[in-house]
Amino acid sequence: MTATIDFYFDFTSPYGYLASRRIEAIAARHEHTVAWHPILLGAIFRHTEQQPLIGIPLKGDYARHDLARAAREHAIPYRLPDPFPIATVPAARAVHWCAEHDDGAEHHRVPELVHALYEALFVENLPIGKAETVVDVAKALKLPASRLADALADDALKQRLRQAIDDAVARGVFGSPMMYVDDEPFWGHDHLEQLDRWLERGGW
Amino acid sequence: MTATIDFYFDFTSPYGYLASRRIEAIAARHEHTVAWHPILLGAIFRHTEQQPLIGIPLKGDYARHDLARAAREHAIPYRLPDPFPIATVPAARAVHWCAEHDDGAEHHRVPELVHALYEALFVENLPIGKAETVVDVAKALKLPASRLADALADDALKQRLRQAIDDAVARGVFGSPMMYVDDEPFWGHDHLEQLDRWLERGGW
Repeated sequence: MTATIDFYFDFTSPYGYLASRRIEAIAARHEHTVAWHPILLGAIFRHTEQQPLIGIPLKGDYARHDLARAAREHAIPYRLPDPFPIATVPAARAVHWCAEHDDGAEHHRVPELVHALYEALFVENLPIGKAETVVDVAKALKLPASRLADALADDALKQRLRQAIDDAVARGVFGSPMMYVDDEPFWGHDHLEQLDRWLERGGW
Repeated sequence: MTATIDFYFDFTSPYGYLASRRIEAIAARHEHTVAWHPILLGAIFRHTEQQPLIGIPLKGDYARHDLARAAREHAIPYRLPDPFPIATVPAARAVHWCAEHDDGAEHHRVPELVHALYEALFVENLPIGKAETVVDVAKALKLPASRLADALADDALKQRLRQAIDDAVARGVFGSPMMYVDDEPFWGHDHLEQLDRWLERGGW
């Protein structure tokens, strides 16, 4: 049986984006797969009384610099979106829809959708905070876009994301990206190497 | 001429402690030396409106776990002090005294004093928030402890630390540890590997 790395992320998180481009290769090296868990930092920050990184004096400037540097180091196309940060409710809901909706094969397409939405925001600067943009991205992937459009307006999907966020907080998720190997948590793009070593050595 | 890594830290910062145990080996590998810059996060957090990591919901619990895990990985003796965090004014002042005071050779002993004070807190759980403990640590190193005791009560030394913190903030320091290679900033114990790669490759 293949083991799983749980990958929690907000679509507006640049470090989540960078890690999303690297986590599958690390997982594959250790015969793990990635389970994608979109969450909303806004909801979590209300719980932890935190605020978006980029607006913090000094720390925000450093983050801009560090993000561009990390993207260069790992040759990941990247630019900070404008405006930033954005609310990512429809993007997060779309992934939950793709993962879980009733009629079938779409859940296999979650990784594609995650990468396409992240790329729309951090490469093409598209407003994925808007439902119509999210539907367009899904359409380009030949997902059933009109059904997604309906689902995005549906209470059941709203509730599903809300529940996913509550579950994440109950597990200890406070930021993005946050990754779990079994119950071992790793926070942040800059912990990917340590996660890699953890899998290599089976912990320590 | 040997280049320098500027290492900014607060003595109450566990990640600062862990990094203090690793930075000299990294520096030496690239023929750099370490310049130690004690600061006070309390003063900086007033500027950036941040709060101590360990008290933040969820994030604080993760930090406790992550610190112990990082210490195990790198075989660094460590325990979280009790009480924690502590104010580290006399410890920070003592290092500035050691670095700069008038009569001579003590500035060569800064690294020893930094390591001894950090070890007093994170290995022996000694209250280095108290001037008398700091003086005892200095005495054990055969530094001129009674002159240090006088200096700790002196306005000139208070002013020197205040100025050092203002200079650090002006440079962009917002946390601990924060390291500079020339003007390239690296924040956090978990950026040591990246700093190492940066020195190896001369940037990217």
